[in-house]
Amino acid sequence: MDVAEEFNPVIIAGFGHFGSTLGRLLRAHDIGTTILDIDSDQVDRLRNMGFKVYYGDASRHDLLEIAGARKAKIIVVAIGDNEKRIEMVQTIKKHFPDLQILVRAANRYDAYDLMNEGMLHIYRETVDTSLRMGVDVMKMLGHRSYTSMRAARTFLKYDEQKLKDLASISDEKEYVLTARKYIEELERILKDDRSKLNASLDEGWDEGSLIREANSNSG
Amino acid sequence: MDVAEEFNPVIIAGFGHFGSTLGRLLRAHDIGTTILDIDSDQVDRLRNMGFKVYYGDASRHDLLEIAGARKAKIIVVAIGDNEKRIEMVQTIKKHFPDLQILVRAANRYDAYDLMNEGMLHIYRETVDTSLRMGVDVMKMLGHRSYTSMRAARTFLKYDEQKLKDLASISDEKEYVLTARKYIEELERILKDDRSKLNASLDEGWDEGSLIREANSNSG
Repeated sequence: MDVAEEFNPVIIAGFGHFGSTLGRLLRAHDIGTTILDIDSDQVDRLRNMGFKVYYGDASRHDLLEIAGARKAKIIVVAIGDNEKRIEMVQTIKKHFPDLQILVRAANRYDAYDLMNEGMLHIYRETVDTSLRMGVDVMKMLGHRSYTSMRAARTFLKYDEQKLKDLASISDEKEYVLTARKYIEELERILKDDRSKLNASLDEGWDEGSLIREANSNSG
Repeated sequence: MDVAEEFNPVIIAGFGHFGSTLGRLLRAHDIGTTILDIDSDQVDRLRNMGFKVYYGDASRHDLLEIAGARKAKIIVVAIGDNEKRIEMVQTIKKHFPDLQILVRAANRYDAYDLMNEGMLHIYRETVDTSLRMGVDVMKMLGHRSYTSMRAARTFLKYDEQKLKDLASISDEKEYVLTARKYIEELERILKDDRSKLNASLDEGWDEGSLIREANSNSG
């Protein structure tokens, strides 16, 4: 690995679509990141795009050491392979216990595995986009922009809270019953919230509605 | 396919993690959805969870007809297989031209293919989550919550706008040059926006910052 002697607060392991989107946001804020990717073609492609990407396997602790894992604050595990992610997380925990680990997950089952590895910052890769799509469906059907977005936020918050409970259930029958209970409970919360909002708000909301709500509440 | 004679404004094709997250949000708002999935094990599992899911291949126009595609307003193509998605989109366009199609995409290259099929509502499945993760990295490093979230919104908006331009470029060299130009332009936009915000805002922002900004702007 040809990593220069530099100190960056963030290491990104895996620079495909997921990692590079995140990496571009950080770069725009001058947040120093050391980027590692194991796919040499991808490394070349990204260098052509102007990224400083290093070829290297972030599940090897000696390479993480060279990449500055001892001095970094945060490592983002953004690779797409579930098993390799678990391996990487185990290596990082063992050799760099002070690093904050933020890790991508494929879905909720993958998230449970990561929770059982002690991970606290888990990001299920499609959950936000599917909720945005849901918000857009709602808007197309005439629902208000603000209420739709608020519902999606409430959804994600509740769903994330319950992940931890569900991760600890090993019996399949109990899992299904509990998951079903949470699904129904979330729907009740969303319905209650909607009734309250509908009772108190005017029609004709749009993009600027949050600002206007804030103004009218304060006035 | 055992779809009852019912009219629902929304059809969801594919009810894995992506489709079911969206479907749960819609159900909580009493939006009638007809759900199709081709995986019979998944159909059984979801029925156990309390979902009304029908077994059926949504790339077959006769099955879409039975599922109510003639009367529905929106179809969500939420399956995970890129090639199958294109096939499904082509069938829907041909047989049900009045249906609004919202389609999931794996990444930007997949999105280009869908654009070239005339799709207007394309949702790249990991883009929102990777941006949320980026926002959290920024916050952990001391950036303000509001400025971080605003940066992510600006990022997504700009990136989506430029997708269409990039989809039309077939020459690889030109593609790399143009993509690189857009990446740099977006970083400039984010940096300028940040400078302006930093010049005008106090420290110590948190979750309620948008509301407070709205209040102070109006006052």
